[in-house]
Amino acid sequence: MVKAPKINRISPLLPDEAKWTELRKIEWTDQSGKDRVWEAAARKTRSKGGVDAVAIAPILRHPSKPPSTLIILQYRPPVEAVCVEFPAGLIDEGETPEQAAIRELKEETGYEGKVCHMSRELSKQPGMTNAVLQVLDCSPTIVSDPGLTTANMQMATIEVELKEGDKEPEQHLEDGEHIERLVVPLHELYDKLQALSKEEGKIVDARLYHWALGLHWSQRIGIKG
Amino acid sequence: MVKAPKINRISPLLPDEAKWTELRKIEWTDQSGKDRVWEAAARKTRSKGGVDAVAIAPILRHPSKPPSTLIILQYRPPVEAVCVEFPAGLIDEGETPEQAAIRELKEETGYEGKVCHMSRELSKQPGMTNAVLQVLDCSPTIVSDPGLTTANMQMATIEVELKEGDKEPEQHLEDGEHIERLVVPLHELYDKLQALSKEEGKIVDARLYHWALGLHWSQRIGIKG
Repeated sequence: MVKAPKINRISPLLPDEAKWTELRKIEWTDQSGKDRVWEAAARKTRSKGGVDAVAIAPILRHPSKPPSTLIILQYRPPVEAVCVEFPAGLIDEGETPEQAAIRELKEETGYEGKVCHMSRELSKQPGMTNAVLQVLDCSPTIVSDPGLTTANMQMATIEVELKEGDKEPEQHLEDGEHIERLVVPLHELYDKLQALSKEEGKIVDARLYHWALGLHWSQRIGIKG
Repeated sequence: MVKAPKINRISPLLPDEAKWTELRKIEWTDQSGKDRVWEAAARKTRSKGGVDAVAIAPILRHPSKPPSTLIILQYRPPVEAVCVEFPAGLIDEGETPEQAAIRELKEETGYEGKVCHMSRELSKQPGMTNAVLQVLDCSPTIVSDPGLTTANMQMATIEVELKEGDKEPEQHLEDGEHIERLVVPLHELYDKLQALSKEEGKIVDARLYHWALGLHWSQRIGIKG
């Protein structure tokens, strides 16, 4: 039976106890030659590739439905709320960001993909009955909150080609993962995030919100190339 | 004389020494009833309003130039690099997010503004010779990296109306702040961020990157409402 998650206790975490995180004292000299100190939080788990995490912006295409994206809802203890995010996860040791993007998308949403950089050609693969996916665009390394943490990530835009009658694939969640998926037409995304936030008490991830706001503004102001 | 900033030493930060940050141990019960522990980093500086920070997505309008945005470049010790970001800052005690957005935009870029929610009317104010700004859109509270930190923020889209011949206003930087401004036409933003990242060794903030990617995708795929 699925119950609402709850916080039992929040206490200071001592450095010896911390398995995943640490605080760092950064002594640096600024542009005017003055010595300063900056405090930063960091993950202890960064792989040799030097990138902590990957997020996926899925673009779902369907013969008779409007272009859509796929967002996930999961409880996040640090903010004590269900968050609305793009599928994402940490990069395992030995994995490339593209491999991690494909693995995480499959685990969290069920969709399977194939890396196909900056190409719009459709690659049919045996055994991929449900959808053919392409990583259309992988970002350079970007940083999530550079005034506070060392956390960095890459972002893969993955296009999912659906056929008429395709069923939603099964998720492959790890033990303890409780993730809900939501398919949202792109032209409704901005309003949907407002509703999830203001009416349903969810908290939207800043990166997803910015992506949706970029989409929204592009339509509102009519950019000329 | 402005020199390149440099890191002298990075060491573990002990809880007693930390002025701005802390690690928290969160004991929680998950959806299946299992007791778990999550580690999170937090700012110690959150004001009573409950929101850490505000970011501004500026939209610059000019009679003879394409619609543009304003991004800033500043050295960020946690990621040991110059970062490319939207203007942003922490909310002071007693400030609303809108007040903080206007203050930070003025300090970091020189432009002055006036809160004017969801209205496109131009409000002429005495003494505002350079530009009339409107906060067109203030986001709900969103979270920057909810798997790692408690950090939250709001985001204000501010439209700046420029006149022919307006000069770039003066910044009002605090002691120790070294911030460079860059005006970028919206239709060039995505390519500009790629170039700053891949050719100039800067690191782009994930939120700005997502906003730019939303703009880019909206044009690429042609969303139908």
